[in-house]
Amino acid sequence: MPRGVPKKVDRSLASLASLRRLPLYLDVCRQAEAEGLSIISGTVIAEQLGLEPIQVRKDLSLTGILGRPRIGYALRELIQRIEFFLRWDVSHSAILIGAGRLGQALLAYRDLRRYNFNILFAFDNDSQKIGMVIEGVKVYDIALMQEMLQKNPAEIAIITTPDYVALDVASVAYNAGVRKFWNFTPRRFRLPPGVLIYTESMLTGFSVLSVRDPTA
Amino acid sequence: MPRGVPKKVDRSLASLASLRRLPLYLDVCRQAEAEGLSIISGTVIAEQLGLEPIQVRKDLSLTGILGRPRIGYALRELIQRIEFFLRWDVSHSAILIGAGRLGQALLAYRDLRRYNFNILFAFDNDSQKIGMVIEGVKVYDIALMQEMLQKNPAEIAIITTPDYVALDVASVAYNAGVRKFWNFTPRRFRLPPGVLIYTESMLTGFSVLSVRDPTA
Repeated sequence: MPRGVPKKVDRSLASLASLRRLPLYLDVCRQAEAEGLSIISGTVIAEQLGLEPIQVRKDLSLTGILGRPRIGYALRELIQRIEFFLRWDVSHSAILIGAGRLGQALLAYRDLRRYNFNILFAFDNDSQKIGMVIEGVKVYDIALMQEMLQKNPAEIAIITTPDYVALDVASVAYNAGVRKFWNFTPRRFRLPPGVLIYTESMLTGFSVLSVRDPTA
Repeated sequence: MPRGVPKKVDRSLASLASLRRLPLYLDVCRQAEAEGLSIISGTVIAEQLGLEPIQVRKDLSLTGILGRPRIGYALRELIQRIEFFLRWDVSHSAILIGAGRLGQALLAYRDLRRYNFNILFAFDNDSQKIGMVIEGVKVYDIALMQEMLQKNPAEIAIITTPDYVALDVASVAYNAGVRKFWNFTPRRFRLPPGVLIYTESMLTGFSVLSVRDPTA
């Protein structure tokens, strides 16, 4: 944790939209650092992302950083504070349920690994896939999932199964103690209270692309 | 178009967040209709999605629909108005650039097809993939892309290549007239003004899952 990071940041203050933007800022900052910069202004970040500077500054203030007027933010400190705020400075364990095409694509997604997202095991019911090692992650028989989760607790279960089994596999993971679900199926499902389910939908991207005018 | 749909809706009034929520409402409405309902209230939609009713009503008012107090919305009309607002009542043509695991997963994503998202061709540079037909879509040599696009204009190019070629392939599609890009690579790239680039990032989902408390 960088010097001067407050002992507590209040993560509950962050809106969903702010949470979604913070990784974008991190991207821009890491790229700037890779280019040899040591300071970056909110205006520059805003320009690169097509956002309003006031929005960027407000989001960044969630991390507790203080920018210097007309100068900007210390880049290394800003990176560390965003990572701290996002809890990406600590490891997050996950399992992947469904080792099909989409699941395999996620196993290969380097940026998740870079930010301490660690997929421990993958599970599938297809005997062709069981035993495979994909991007360093072994695929196990889904019948073993509950037992393996009880021995190796995981924070997050990624659901990349066919949609009609999404609730079933999520329920097994829930019973084995998982409380955060990353659902890539089009099926929206519910679990008892005290569970976080984040559903990715391809329809959101399509709605923006369909409605927005490129020339506007 | 349903009776009573205004000749013009002003799509430019929709915020990015509203655009992202409209497909969720559509999901809920179609499910309700499949269950035999003919009327749905904003409160019910809000409950199913964990949103505020006022938010839902405000978003839905973008489509020009009028709900009846204490009764709700006519379900069929609401579905039609959302689809009209999202332009999902007309066909959208797309090409897929990169027929790897993620690309193949997108070709198999039924919900996109259901809403008139039509992938015409896929392109790859891998001789093993060229000639394959995946979910009814044929994979062509990427060297043919510019020529094929000039003969068969496409509205949207989906980029599922390795990130280091994302800008190159997008530039070829741009030169052949594509103005909307759906970027699934972690690379953010720019094209001349008058282009819409929507980037999907797995990091946004991870940021929400990492920060949010399931018990909150």
